[in-house]
Amino acid sequence: MELSYRDKSIVVALGGNAISKPGQVGDVPQQFENTNYTANYLAGLVEAGYQLIVTHGNGPQVGNVLRRVELAARELYRLPLHICGAHTQGGMGYMIAQCLNNVLQRRGIARRFTAIVTSVEVDRNDTGFLKPTKPIGGFYRKEKAEELQREQGWDMILVPRQGYRRVVASPPPRAIVEIELIRRLVDAGELLVAAGGGGNPVARDEAGNWVGVEAVIDKDRTAALLGRTLDVPTLVIVTSVDKVALDYGTPQERLLDNLTATEAQRHLAAGQFPPGSMGPKMEAAIEFLRDCTRGDARVIICDIEHLADALAGRSGTRIEPDA
Amino acid sequence: MELSYRDKSIVVALGGNAISKPGQVGDVPQQFENTNYTANYLAGLVEAGYQLIVTHGNGPQVGNVLRRVELAARELYRLPLHICGAHTQGGMGYMIAQCLNNVLQRRGIARRFTAIVTSVEVDRNDTGFLKPTKPIGGFYRKEKAEELQREQGWDMILVPRQGYRRVVASPPPRAIVEIELIRRLVDAGELLVAAGGGGNPVARDEAGNWVGVEAVIDKDRTAALLGRTLDVPTLVIVTSVDKVALDYGTPQERLLDNLTATEAQRHLAAGQFPPGSMGPKMEAAIEFLRDCTRGDARVIICDIEHLADALAGRSGTRIEPDA
Repeated sequence: MELSYRDKSIVVALGGNAISKPGQVGDVPQQFENTNYTANYLAGLVEAGYQLIVTHGNGPQVGNVLRRVELAARELYRLPLHICGAHTQGGMGYMIAQCLNNVLQRRGIARRFTAIVTSVEVDRNDTGFLKPTKPIGGFYRKEKAEELQREQGWDMILVPRQGYRRVVASPPPRAIVEIELIRRLVDAGELLVAAGGGGNPVARDEAGNWVGVEAVIDKDRTAALLGRTLDVPTLVIVTSVDKVALDYGTPQERLLDNLTATEAQRHLAAGQFPPGSMGPKMEAAIEFLRDCTRGDARVIICDIEHLADALAGRSGTRIEPDA
Repeated sequence: MELSYRDKSIVVALGGNAISKPGQVGDVPQQFENTNYTANYLAGLVEAGYQLIVTHGNGPQVGNVLRRVELAARELYRLPLHICGAHTQGGMGYMIAQCLNNVLQRRGIARRFTAIVTSVEVDRNDTGFLKPTKPIGGFYRKEKAEELQREQGWDMILVPRQGYRRVVASPPPRAIVEIELIRRLVDAGELLVAAGGGGNPVARDEAGNWVGVEAVIDKDRTAALLGRTLDVPTLVIVTSVDKVALDYGTPQERLLDNLTATEAQRHLAAGQFPPGSMGPKMEAAIEFLRDCTRGDARVIICDIEHLADALAGRSGTRIEPDA
């Protein structure tokens, strides 16, 4: 039987490192350089016949948008967080699609990526809104932090040695607003960049209207939801290490080639995967595989250089449904 | 014969007033309020069976993005113009689609808009790059203007009583990069927001790669190109007046109900439609109708309140191909 486009589909979640490397200024020429590097590997997958839905983080970029908004706040109106996120979706979606299309064109592959502005629904009653924990944007001195808390209603935390920082809710994604169009595009074989930065966070108000909310959504969880909802076999989480480790950074460190969803859950519960690092990726992997009915479902965590090898089972860490 | 989606298609170009009204601060709540107002009229067209491809200006929004970039430039890397434009495409595409979808949902119409990040090709050898004329961003004092000219290579002009301002090229749009996908979506009956702000300006470099360029593209000209390339019958340019006038602002002022492309060209040549105002709209209208093979082709210029009446021939100014 001929495989459908969906059967050949991979949701690829690009981490911040794929676009802005730690230690770099991270300006636009560097972002293009890094994205071109990443695009070369992704184009290889297209060449090999895979259908890609690329999603990406936006941490450094949206942080800089927020900082610009604050630095200009005396003269210009502020932008709410959902608009800042949408800005990075436009800017990064444009950049990522352009870099990918340039590689495809150079290699004589007649397919093209398009970036879709994507909103993601969260539950406005999510408890995360009561006690926000996700730090975003710049650092502030105490006086400025208190002013922002008072005048903007921001929740602030003190980060040792760095200053005060805004924290916002990071509720789990519930639904992808544009999913029907995205599904039709995937089934038609289109290559997409979608749900960048975890998606623009929206919730339903009392009247049932979509409204933007002050939140950020974890991009790996959104990638998992995208993959689940599209019913694609493969979720790839691209990160800065080629394999997931147990007892990371200790003499007992072991790299993992394979594990089941239940094993992943057990290691997660045992504190093996720290929050803000491998934790959310493993949660996303477990979420993707939960109740999965596809026999070929798998999550791969690897770095960009090992992506093709990891898909072929020769590298990376693979998480599979329980037997 | 059943009409195809394309036969029922309208490219609608929203002017700045549809989103940010002169005299307002133009902050995000006001932008949403104005966009909701506009969305009510556009949803009426969807309800009446039209297929819409909505495009929009971004003047005030991209101007504010540029001002934020400059106000933060001592601390944070600058964003090139094509990235700033892409930011507004994300932010405004998200906002416009959300407002439209909320109205459609309230009215029980099961169709939805999606915003597509769109690049538009210009000719890198366009003479406009040699002598830029389109003012963008904030105003500067002489010293700062000279510094920006020297250090950033900007072209600056002196605007009487307001200060120095950057000018960039505004080359004509040559091709819409995502046109194939957009065409398939239109033919499948999808409702789109596309090519916001005239599109992200790109050109081919020596190696044939797409690269962003420091330019802005007139949104009405891009709308005309979009309509021409998609071969849709109707281009609507939404502006702040309900009809185009001759001898505007004089005792001889006459409002126009109908004119042909040749008449429009003659009035344009006679200086009836000033640059920066009705001029580019008339140029776009003429461009849309040039060599047009559709018998039902027409351009309508009107305000948002008279949109439905104008489509029915009861209001607005209609420009048609020569008989």
